[in-house]
Amino acid sequence: MSTDSNVPGRWVEENHDDQYRFGFRVTKELFSGQSDFQKVEVVETAGHGKMLLNDGLVMVSERDEFVYHDMMAHVPLFTHPDPKRVLVIGGGDGGTAREVLRHPYVEHCRMVEIDDMVVESCRQHIPLTSSVFDHPKLQLDIADGVKFLAETDEKYDVILIDSTDPIGPAAPLFGTDFYKNVYRALTDEGIVVAQAENGFYEQEAQVALVKIVSELFPICRLYNYSNLTYPGGLWSFLLSSKKFHPVKDFVPDRVTSSGLDFKYYNEDIHRASFAQPSFIRKAVAPYLKDGAQ
Amino acid sequence: MSTDSNVPGRWVEENHDDQYRFGFRVTKELFSGQSDFQKVEVVETAGHGKMLLNDGLVMVSERDEFVYHDMMAHVPLFTHPDPKRVLVIGGGDGGTAREVLRHPYVEHCRMVEIDDMVVESCRQHIPLTSSVFDHPKLQLDIADGVKFLAETDEKYDVILIDSTDPIGPAAPLFGTDFYKNVYRALTDEGIVVAQAENGFYEQEAQVALVKIVSELFPICRLYNYSNLTYPGGLWSFLLSSKKFHPVKDFVPDRVTSSGLDFKYYNEDIHRASFAQPSFIRKAVAPYLKDGAQ
Repeated sequence: MSTDSNVPGRWVEENHDDQYRFGFRVTKELFSGQSDFQKVEVVETAGHGKMLLNDGLVMVSERDEFVYHDMMAHVPLFTHPDPKRVLVIGGGDGGTAREVLRHPYVEHCRMVEIDDMVVESCRQHIPLTSSVFDHPKLQLDIADGVKFLAETDEKYDVILIDSTDPIGPAAPLFGTDFYKNVYRALTDEGIVVAQAENGFYEQEAQVALVKIVSELFPICRLYNYSNLTYPGGLWSFLLSSKKFHPVKDFVPDRVTSSGLDFKYYNEDIHRASFAQPSFIRKAVAPYLKDGAQ
Repeated sequence: MSTDSNVPGRWVEENHDDQYRFGFRVTKELFSGQSDFQKVEVVETAGHGKMLLNDGLVMVSERDEFVYHDMMAHVPLFTHPDPKRVLVIGGGDGGTAREVLRHPYVEHCRMVEIDDMVVESCRQHIPLTSSVFDHPKLQLDIADGVKFLAETDEKYDVILIDSTDPIGPAAPLFGTDFYKNVYRALTDEGIVVAQAENGFYEQEAQVALVKIVSELFPICRLYNYSNLTYPGGLWSFLLSSKKFHPVKDFVPDRVTSSGLDFKYYNEDIHRASFAQPSFIRKAVAPYLKDGAQ
């Protein structure tokens, strides 16, 4: 451990507002391309395995992808008592769909990703997440998720909004119009989970999303996770539900008796992830219809 | 947000094994000195307020110090039903003692910090944490905490090991001999909490500490927090207790009726922080006498 780099070569580095920056050392560049939506890169790193970057921001690393994908998929799939049809918007690396399809009672998982280059670069270089693309229960569409949800007549038990930050191609995924269509595409017992930013650095965006979604859904709850490759300590998902409460209606025994073994998620983490630090609890409480977070 | 820095000037940056690095932009250097133990610096940063660094590693920033200090102090002080005498080993910035002394029933807080330069530089430049040094209930000693505990006949209800990483001056604080003296200096109902590293990047050190301490104490539990200035997502404290269990014996009403307002800690976070991701739960479970984490 030192404060100076001793090894020459490229680092992929995020610089946030010239206030803080963090980076990972690259040992090999595996793919680089410019799609219609963003710059897409896959690199091999010195300590975090292969890594996918969109517009220079880390999306997924092999070392810690299990944290994000476990928490996005298993919290709603163990809240809903019988999820059969699941829709993933985004999630082009495949990790979220992979975790969804570990649940044997899920009959159909549809994935709508806008950027073919993300899918194809992951298919070629990151089989850890992309091997799911060949799963017989998966239907993969390269299409605009916003348009798909505006037009579809299908109904889903669980919808997962596996998006990048609310800039660039993912910006509409943080808006009211989009969530009205999400609501419409869910069954009467449906649950939606969305990537919901960071409570320290992006509290304004987080609260804005809670405010929009809580106007549509009777139950909204932020829940947290921490991984290695996103800066800011506490990252959140927003779970919004028409009927089932993710803590009050959660049955821990469904997890322990499932026979599934998760590297991050478990029945304790499920409940604990909904506990919020006071500064987040205070910021979102005014927008929750059913009482404090 | 961009991947290139547009502003010239110094960044304080940690480089870990040339695998990952992260840094904060400095706008002003406030103090720099070499003590008998380490290089001590205080800087003003662009986005995180004033920052204390020991040997180039971030110890405290004004922006997020409340996370660490809340979690180190309030979890044990709301687990022990009547903590009157508290000992802090290390914690030279003062933040931990500050939080301890917000509890009105604490009668005496003794703080033993080895490095006078840390204390004095914080006293001069970071009053947010160091203002506690003038508190009438605080006794501040500049002394070796290892030696102090080996020689003292005093007894404490709660001991807080607010140390740096297990390298340099803090290395002995992670050893069996030290913990035997901690055990001896605790009352029969005593609780000790120690900074316990990171479950992703430092799992070996974390498990080694659990193994050592669980041989002495009937109850040992890791609990987690996430802040902005330590890399690796999930950071831990290890709470070890002679009598009171931090979850089973916890009375949430003591927090809600205390009249104290914390920016991070609350009764939900207290319980939730003990939930561990599966990969940490599996690693420490073999060493816990009273069942799984």
